[in-house]
Amino acid sequence: MVKKTFLTKEKIIKIENGNVMHALKKNSKGYVDFGEAYFSKINFHSIKAWKKHERMTLNLLVPYGKVCFVVFFKNKNNNIFKKYILSSTDNNRLTIPPGTCFGFKGLNKPFSLVLNISDIIHDDKEVEKINLDAVDYSWRKII
Amino acid sequence: MVKKTFLTKEKIIKIENGNVMHALKKNSKGYVDFGEAYFSKINFHSIKAWKKHERMTLNLLVPYGKVCFVVFFKNKNNNIFKKYILSSTDNNRLTIPPGTCFGFKGLNKPFSLVLNISDIIHDDKEVEKINLDAVDYSWRKII
Repeated sequence: MVKKTFLTKEKIIKIENGNVMHALKKNSKGYVDFGEAYFSKINFHSIKAWKKHERMTLNLLVPYGKVCFVVFFKNKNNNIFKKYILSSTDNNRLTIPPGTCFGFKGLNKPFSLVLNISDIIHDDKEVEKINLDAVDYSWRKII
Repeated sequence: MVKKTFLTKEKIIKIENGNVMHALKKNSKGYVDFGEAYFSKINFHSIKAWKKHERMTLNLLVPYGKVCFVVFFKNKNNNIFKKYILSSTDNNRLTIPPGTCFGFKGLNKPFSLVLNISDIIHDDKEVEKINLDAVDYSWRKII
């Protein structure tokens, strides 16, 4: 079981006709189970926020472009925000456990691609959507 | 268990800030198990061929660009070739069972991205590599 949000550096294998980029193995740190894999495009400077999954553990990669993920949680009366930059050149994987509130912003023209390998099949009932404006966070400073 | 190579049309959900593209669910036709997910870049007009996996079932998607996959098998004394075009706009998934000889060519500038969701972790011992020139196939006609 995953309890904290964390990054894992995944290997890039240099090959003349096109590199191979590792994403996730069943024995990787952060892997829980396989439920579903899907891509989410994010247009340049667009934001998808905020979401909180009750049961899903997410494993996120950005095989094309560059994306800033923001995770937030409450500590006493303060909102604590943490940023994670993922890109195809870094090939980092971001693991987000259930109960974590997060959003993301596209930093590549014209778009970026996010792959989520989730431990459960998508279920609308386990996703809480929070309006972008309901959380006081300055997305504009992320460029 | 998968016995034949086949295509599955995966859903594209239109969203203003960037579409969602389905890839694979644990109850999808063609899903066997989760071993590993990795990306393979393929440069424009480059070819990666030929490979034959003894144990791996592959589920392939092209979330960026356009790729032509060629599968071949022997029928009596003839080589039979089958082409499958995958692209981010079509969002098809190609399932390739163990024992299938295949290769692919990139059709997008400057590159395309292939995602493989494999039922086993990569193991060099179960992959047979056959030289591009060892099979009489006209890759040049694929443009």
